[in-house]
Amino acid sequence: MTEGTSTSGPSRRRFLGVALGSAGVAAAGSTGFGVARATEPGAPTASGPVPFYGEHQAGIATPAQDRLAFAAFDITTTDAQAVQTVLGSWAAAASRMTAGEAIGPTETAPQAPPVDTGEAFDLGPAGLTVTVGFGPSFFDGRFGLAGKRPAALADLPALPGDALDPARSNGDLCVQACANDPQVAFHVIRNFARIGRGTVVMRWSQLGFGRTSATSIAQQTPRNLMGFKDGTNNVKAEDAAELDQFVWVAGETDQPWMKGGSYLVTRRIRMLIESWDADYLGDQETIFGRRKDSGAPLTGRSEFDLVDLSAKAPGGSLVIDADAHIRLAAPSSHGGQRILRRGYSYTDGTDPQTGQLDAGLFFIAFQKDPRVQFVPIQRMLGQRDLLNEYIKHVGTGLFAVPPGLRKAGDWYGKSLFT
Amino acid sequence: MTEGTSTSGPSRRRFLGVALGSAGVAAAGSTGFGVARATEPGAPTASGPVPFYGEHQAGIATPAQDRLAFAAFDITTTDAQAVQTVLGSWAAAASRMTAGEAIGPTETAPQAPPVDTGEAFDLGPAGLTVTVGFGPSFFDGRFGLAGKRPAALADLPALPGDALDPARSNGDLCVQACANDPQVAFHVIRNFARIGRGTVVMRWSQLGFGRTSATSIAQQTPRNLMGFKDGTNNVKAEDAAELDQFVWVAGETDQPWMKGGSYLVTRRIRMLIESWDADYLGDQETIFGRRKDSGAPLTGRSEFDLVDLSAKAPGGSLVIDADAHIRLAAPSSHGGQRILRRGYSYTDGTDPQTGQLDAGLFFIAFQKDPRVQFVPIQRMLGQRDLLNEYIKHVGTGLFAVPPGLRKAGDWYGKSLFT
Repeated sequence: MTEGTSTSGPSRRRFLGVALGSAGVAAAGSTGFGVARATEPGAPTASGPVPFYGEHQAGIATPAQDRLAFAAFDITTTDAQAVQTVLGSWAAAASRMTAGEAIGPTETAPQAPPVDTGEAFDLGPAGLTVTVGFGPSFFDGRFGLAGKRPAALADLPALPGDALDPARSNGDLCVQACANDPQVAFHVIRNFARIGRGTVVMRWSQLGFGRTSATSIAQQTPRNLMGFKDGTNNVKAEDAAELDQFVWVAGETDQPWMKGGSYLVTRRIRMLIESWDADYLGDQETIFGRRKDSGAPLTGRSEFDLVDLSAKAPGGSLVIDADAHIRLAAPSSHGGQRILRRGYSYTDGTDPQTGQLDAGLFFIAFQKDPRVQFVPIQRMLGQRDLLNEYIKHVGTGLFAVPPGLRKAGDWYGKSLFT
Repeated sequence: MTEGTSTSGPSRRRFLGVALGSAGVAAAGSTGFGVARATEPGAPTASGPVPFYGEHQAGIATPAQDRLAFAAFDITTTDAQAVQTVLGSWAAAASRMTAGEAIGPTETAPQAPPVDTGEAFDLGPAGLTVTVGFGPSFFDGRFGLAGKRPAALADLPALPGDALDPARSNGDLCVQACANDPQVAFHVIRNFARIGRGTVVMRWSQLGFGRTSATSIAQQTPRNLMGFKDGTNNVKAEDAAELDQFVWVAGETDQPWMKGGSYLVTRRIRMLIESWDADYLGDQETIFGRRKDSGAPLTGRSEFDLVDLSAKAPGGSLVIDADAHIRLAAPSSHGGQRILRRGYSYTDGTDPQTGQLDAGLFFIAFQKDPRVQFVPIQRMLGQRDLLNEYIKHVGTGLFAVPPGLRKAGDWYGKSLFT
């Protein structure tokens, strides 16, 4: 309680001090997590903690949770020390929140604002993960870090079909908070914004629900808002070799501080729901290349049957259309390249102009190098995917996600600054 | 599968026919439901069905679920028959969705749009309830129903502190879908909009999460986004006498079609989160009249201790401030009147003008007569509540919620039209 007796009002240093004081608690008691979506009555939800410290940041290869709160921040200062203080305070706060704790004592003196905003008291860890990244603009020289920008963090080129809204795109920093309770996820974004006040300002944010890919063999493939199982063939957490090949940055990087990290691409993909819902079932299945009900590829009988891209119908035409989504997204169409998808559905009310639903997919993908993974994959999809008639890419983001923190006192990008 | 062989494309009649065909299934297998929020690791979630047919519509006195999808619709036709067809199709669809079923066969002919949009396949009932109501404008004479408008459905007067946005207010019809899975709740709004196409258009919609009141003794009081337990003294589902006294319309109504129904008031209450988070703990507790951590009234030690509004501190001042939220919202401040609150937190991203969070409470209250319940309560709160410094009422809605449907073939407002 002694921290709380200060009458000097809130300060950034105070957050850092309070939070670091017992950050070590986060590592203790971390046991594991269950499946991300309970589809059976009475099935357990993943309410336990996910370990915060480790080789990689959690929230990438850890099983996808049910809820997302994502935010991009711009830095409003050129004081590199202030930025480091925020990154350190964020790390300390994340270590506590992921353990299901408030970011500071919950009973402070009456003449001070509470350290924690309080709406997640009693809700437990709820499988929370917090993942932080740096956008290309972070390396524009304001903080003396122009030489630390990785080559793989090249600005995304213009891609076919882009209809991007700058107000929903990019940013100096990003925070991905995933949990099985939306209030727990939102709590992170709100407290990060609060901790960073005076140094960072929120540029855009996105809530998501109903993860759209399985990232673990134990997870069922969920459905996107088009009603299809998508991401069946996602890179899975259990396959360490695939993660090493496609997701984790290794020794070959030009920037050693990124070793063990990954590159995050976000795309806000609006679905033209009303048009889609008026489309014929057969056409919908042709577009995806899968059955809607079972999720089976059109060349198989059940969801995990092998996709036979060369199969032909009796008349000689391809069973899976030349421009079907499943074909164009397949690794074999991209020299074997794959990405780890971790997206969420979103619905943001109604478009005031049209009265139509503003809903779709907040696409999130992790990879070793977007230049040879996301960019060529999306270029081909943007040019040819049959799905393009029903979607629009309206937001974009690219972030370098540094490796995991190893112990209390570490902070995001420590090796970047030092 | 025979319905699916039609090649005439989608039609409203077809939805009705398909859905009514097996609407009776919904009533069978309805068993009950668990607590709404699982706070203990491994605690069961409420994934079973809530009975659809009954004396009252579900979603009022049934335990509050974790997620909300709410929509208001305007009617774009003067054809009363078309309106009845939509209301009948909605009822049939709701009876299926609340039983965890698609609204029609999931495998239709390839040359027809799927009857169900599909994103909730496999997710089960998830405790879904669907509650439909009629706004004052429904009785403006377009459908020959001006004489059926209940006196209690009087337009809400201007209230102190209102800052209402017409684009987020009112509507001819409303649909409240609550479930323990957001995709299941959203599925209702989307399919209702689709069923109603050509007859109704969505006016506004609202997603919510983390219910802010307990409506059952078995439910823990959750926290709002200010971090406080609010609604501790809500009317509870188990108290039939209170429900009869404060919630259900009885024989005294001037409109017999409303007997067994209730009146729904919605308010989108934006919280000025950043200001609130900078306020002192002591001040926050004075404003609510409760401790933040425990939820105990300032005159007690634990959440459910009696609120002693007359208690005085040694110096003679009131322990619970004269304008504390807990005092002004107390039944004793309103001649014993109470309401059934069933609100949800919302976060709708960032205010583009200020970069501040657009978040708060989507207030929902049910009552027997808003003229003597919500209106005087809110008038006093709007004038005096200490909380007013940190909130803004930006949206409003008032709806007459008819009684429950009794059997397959019934529909919303049937006795209103006949």
